[in-house]
Amino acid sequence: MVILLTNDDGIHSYGIRDLSKVLSKEHEIYIVAPDRERSATSHSLTLHKPLRAKEVEIYGAKKAWETNGTPSDCVKLGVYVLLSKRPDLLISGINRGANLGTDVLYSGTVAAAMEGAFLGIPSIAVSNVSFEKKIDFTLSANLTSRFISSVEKILEPGVIFNVNVPDCLEEEIKGFKLVSLQLRNYKNLIETRVDPKGEKYYWLYGVPDETSSDIDSDINAIKRKYVSITPLHWDLTNISLLEKIKNLGIF
Amino acid sequence: MVILLTNDDGIHSYGIRDLSKVLSKEHEIYIVAPDRERSATSHSLTLHKPLRAKEVEIYGAKKAWETNGTPSDCVKLGVYVLLSKRPDLLISGINRGANLGTDVLYSGTVAAAMEGAFLGIPSIAVSNVSFEKKIDFTLSANLTSRFISSVEKILEPGVIFNVNVPDCLEEEIKGFKLVSLQLRNYKNLIETRVDPKGEKYYWLYGVPDETSSDIDSDINAIKRKYVSITPLHWDLTNISLLEKIKNLGIF
Repeated sequence: MVILLTNDDGIHSYGIRDLSKVLSKEHEIYIVAPDRERSATSHSLTLHKPLRAKEVEIYGAKKAWETNGTPSDCVKLGVYVLLSKRPDLLISGINRGANLGTDVLYSGTVAAAMEGAFLGIPSIAVSNVSFEKKIDFTLSANLTSRFISSVEKILEPGVIFNVNVPDCLEEEIKGFKLVSLQLRNYKNLIETRVDPKGEKYYWLYGVPDETSSDIDSDINAIKRKYVSITPLHWDLTNISLLEKIKNLGIF
Repeated sequence: MVILLTNDDGIHSYGIRDLSKVLSKEHEIYIVAPDRERSATSHSLTLHKPLRAKEVEIYGAKKAWETNGTPSDCVKLGVYVLLSKRPDLLISGINRGANLGTDVLYSGTVAAAMEGAFLGIPSIAVSNVSFEKKIDFTLSANLTSRFISSVEKILEPGVIFNVNVPDCLEEEIKGFKLVSLQLRNYKNLIETRVDPKGEKYYWLYGVPDETSSDIDSDINAIKRKYVSITPLHWDLTNISLLEKIKNLGIF
């Protein structure tokens, strides 16, 4: 397959490089990724300034470009301008750190996969739940390769997968698990402090509250050392509430 | 009701001020909003620097604070620290510019409403589709007030509504319309130019392609001059694809 890789950790991250190395054994790899970490602005498109793309050498990739844009910009640039052929598949990642449950709504890695799906390209977001600075992503890349083979036949336009790899040794991984997203609650802790002038200021810090994880959820799958697989869609419409309101005749 | 207002256009925008003025006739209003426009970083939480909140006077509001945080920060600060009582309802807006279809996934206005819902507070995102610099939001605020009265009985924790007001005169508005989000396609146009040094650069610009809007969609409702009402949820799991894959026995 022709595969376009992008991410939000930047083109210099180990995650995208290990992915390129491993997937290039069986696929034709192109990379269009941000020139630096773009986690904060990753949902956005750059409309207010021109974009640049510079060709770079990445092991395994037939061609690779770094851009000054966001992950979503990279997907558009890759598909519409830089690649000479249309990709069969887009992979966003491998992200350093989990993208689980409702956090998916805030994820740049997943946003890039959604962008691919909007352009009609089957897309996969892959994350490794470890936040270590130096992760070896080879295992995650190998698992991604196996995952692609498993789902190759159902990679139709509009299909999006969110994949998370647990932080453990290869022999500890129990396999793939098809699961739903779970509402990720945080114990939202805010610490109020007082500065030397006597003014208050606040530190936000969120600790995930995972005491009540659903058995069939992505969060629980990761806890149990499975690779979590969740098919996503883009439709935030709450159909059941919509039907309920219709039946009530409010509108 | 006790209502907390926030937005992503900033506390100085007309949208939130007109909302405060109108809703304060019937409700107890509190405002916690960014001190400037925060559209770009609106999905994010501020964990890397301390937050400040400064009390300000806003017409209609019992108390109001401007903060250096994002809309999501504002919701957390309001609920956990600043307000002395728990709000019955959160309203994010009134946004200048539409939040329709799949664009909702990228909207700071909607993100703030989702944050409210995560904290168990019924939440409404309100946008006016006009992009004019000087909109009179009074009509939109009056419509929001009417909308609140209509749905007051079903404002349970977890309920999120996305409301868009069309850009037209009061007498032209046909009423409220309960609709689904529509996949918003863009004609993704990228213009390639060459700078004086002979290097290529790219301008992204997206023109919404609304030739094929679904009859029951928010985009179509706005076109027909209805106020679009869409109940939202946070779950991006594609249940039907998940079931299909289960049936295929892939995992």
